[in-house]
Amino acid sequence: MTNIKDLARMAGVSVTTVSRVLNNHPYVSKEKRTAVLEAISESNYEQNINAVHLSKGKTQMIGVVLPFSDHPYFALLLKGIAKEALENNYKLVLFQTDYMESRELEALQMLKQKQIDSLIICSRTCEWSVLEEYLQYGTIVLCENVNGKEFSSTFVNQYTIFLRTLEFLFQKGHEKIGYCIGRKTGPSSKLRARAYQEFLEKNNLPFQEKYIIDQCNYFEDAEKVMDMILYMDTPPTALIVTSDQVAAGIVTCCQKQGIKIPEELAIIGFHNEPIAKMMEISSIEIPLLDMGKHLFHQAISKDITNKEMFFHFIERGTV
Amino acid sequence: MTNIKDLARMAGVSVTTVSRVLNNHPYVSKEKRTAVLEAISESNYEQNINAVHLSKGKTQMIGVVLPFSDHPYFALLLKGIAKEALENNYKLVLFQTDYMESRELEALQMLKQKQIDSLIICSRTCEWSVLEEYLQYGTIVLCENVNGKEFSSTFVNQYTIFLRTLEFLFQKGHEKIGYCIGRKTGPSSKLRARAYQEFLEKNNLPFQEKYIIDQCNYFEDAEKVMDMILYMDTPPTALIVTSDQVAAGIVTCCQKQGIKIPEELAIIGFHNEPIAKMMEISSIEIPLLDMGKHLFHQAISKDITNKEMFFHFIERGTV
Repeated sequence: MTNIKDLARMAGVSVTTVSRVLNNHPYVSKEKRTAVLEAISESNYEQNINAVHLSKGKTQMIGVVLPFSDHPYFALLLKGIAKEALENNYKLVLFQTDYMESRELEALQMLKQKQIDSLIICSRTCEWSVLEEYLQYGTIVLCENVNGKEFSSTFVNQYTIFLRTLEFLFQKGHEKIGYCIGRKTGPSSKLRARAYQEFLEKNNLPFQEKYIIDQCNYFEDAEKVMDMILYMDTPPTALIVTSDQVAAGIVTCCQKQGIKIPEELAIIGFHNEPIAKMMEISSIEIPLLDMGKHLFHQAISKDITNKEMFFHFIERGTV
Repeated sequence: MTNIKDLARMAGVSVTTVSRVLNNHPYVSKEKRTAVLEAISESNYEQNINAVHLSKGKTQMIGVVLPFSDHPYFALLLKGIAKEALENNYKLVLFQTDYMESRELEALQMLKQKQIDSLIICSRTCEWSVLEEYLQYGTIVLCENVNGKEFSSTFVNQYTIFLRTLEFLFQKGHEKIGYCIGRKTGPSSKLRARAYQEFLEKNNLPFQEKYIIDQCNYFEDAEKVMDMILYMDTPPTALIVTSDQVAAGIVTCCQKQGIKIPEELAIIGFHNEPIAKMMEISSIEIPLLDMGKHLFHQAISKDITNKEMFFHFIERGTV
């Protein structure tokens, strides 16, 4: 493969001159520039794209921060982002963080170093103050309500969704309602905790710490949930499960153990994934694919916009 | 933010000189180099990382080609790759191809342009001759048996897996065996087709085109499979399903329609995903997470190696 030294020899100029031409630097005579361009043309030299990025200040690459790529929630968001990226000739750089702040910082650092043009954070770990420091280096798009901060975002109102779902179950006669989430510290779960607290207070119901079960991300996490519930003196009569995968796992466990749904345990999943449809699980529909597409377009836009997406309650056999 | 022009002004040199220093070019006097370095240090200037890549010839980025990021098979491979990438301080650039050759070529082009150091192709669409042209630009790692070609690879023997599974079902008394795959044209499916043909010939069984059902990737694809089977005059008595998700979907459909498993339809899934364990589906265990990790290490290695991973048959209630 022809390299920069070969080009210099062919054009009869110094390596520095070739580099200047490649990088569009000034102070190269017309003759030398022409000689270099002819050498490039003759040699079929493929320019190192990093030189192009350096001169353009753009990489056509967008970073995507997500905790796990194999979780259906994030996989669907990513699919939506990836679909639009391809159609718009952008590449994606993936940051799988396992919710570690240091890994989110690495992604921000890449934005600072102009290795990516923008960053989409599907689930945030860093504090706002940290993210705000990096805003000067490029666009940062979030998947939560940013409440007037200078970030673009596409989100659903997790507080309202949770409150309405709790009220729906209460109207069906449930007073012992539990819920299953991924992590307690995330922005969405904080909103859910607030909705739960307010719901309990409004209806004079006692708070039961044990009804909040975290680390529920995958189908198989349902086994742990069932083990916990079966050992409770007063188990919940209804569960809101923020992942259809986990909800499907719980339904499967209940079938095996002869627990009647919804008579003994009512279940509402989240996202209305195909598995919820096929297993006839009631679910909160959230348009993840469209959210992903929207996040991408915000990442390449110069404007700061905030888009709330709507949810629908799909009632099936499990409530 | 300080830019290259600010640095030039602070150091009292030309922009070109600053650029030369940043790019480690020769022909810069000691004094000027010192002045630029002092300006950088004073101004807290963050170097454009593309300049670093240009001078080092390495980006610490690895491309990953996969058809869909939301399919459990590829999501698990990607998870393994991503885990090792993080631990070794590499970033991943994702190419979601939907099996379109043009998108695989984009990834290869990025390798040629040195925007990524290596490329992992989880499922290939391009011909070997095309891939071989790009070998000169960087490491290309594949997830299939390369049969002596100059690529590193981590793979399972799809031919042997399929033949053994067919023989197992035959010994259980099945003569009408069908199978569900993602696409007919993929390298794995070609090996499966060969195993199937040889199995039929060896046992004097007729070939039935309709027993091969493609486009089976997701849980919900099971509905289509069941619709097809229910309309057949002589439906298969056993199905090998190359995705546990689809196998789980088929089991769910059978439960709804009162079809007895395994008496009326035997089912064997692939990968031994958690859903197979929980729904008690027999499955071929393939260590996808470990394969992903191995693929990553081959991508950063200078040696060409080929690693065959082993599979295990996990017998549960569906055969």
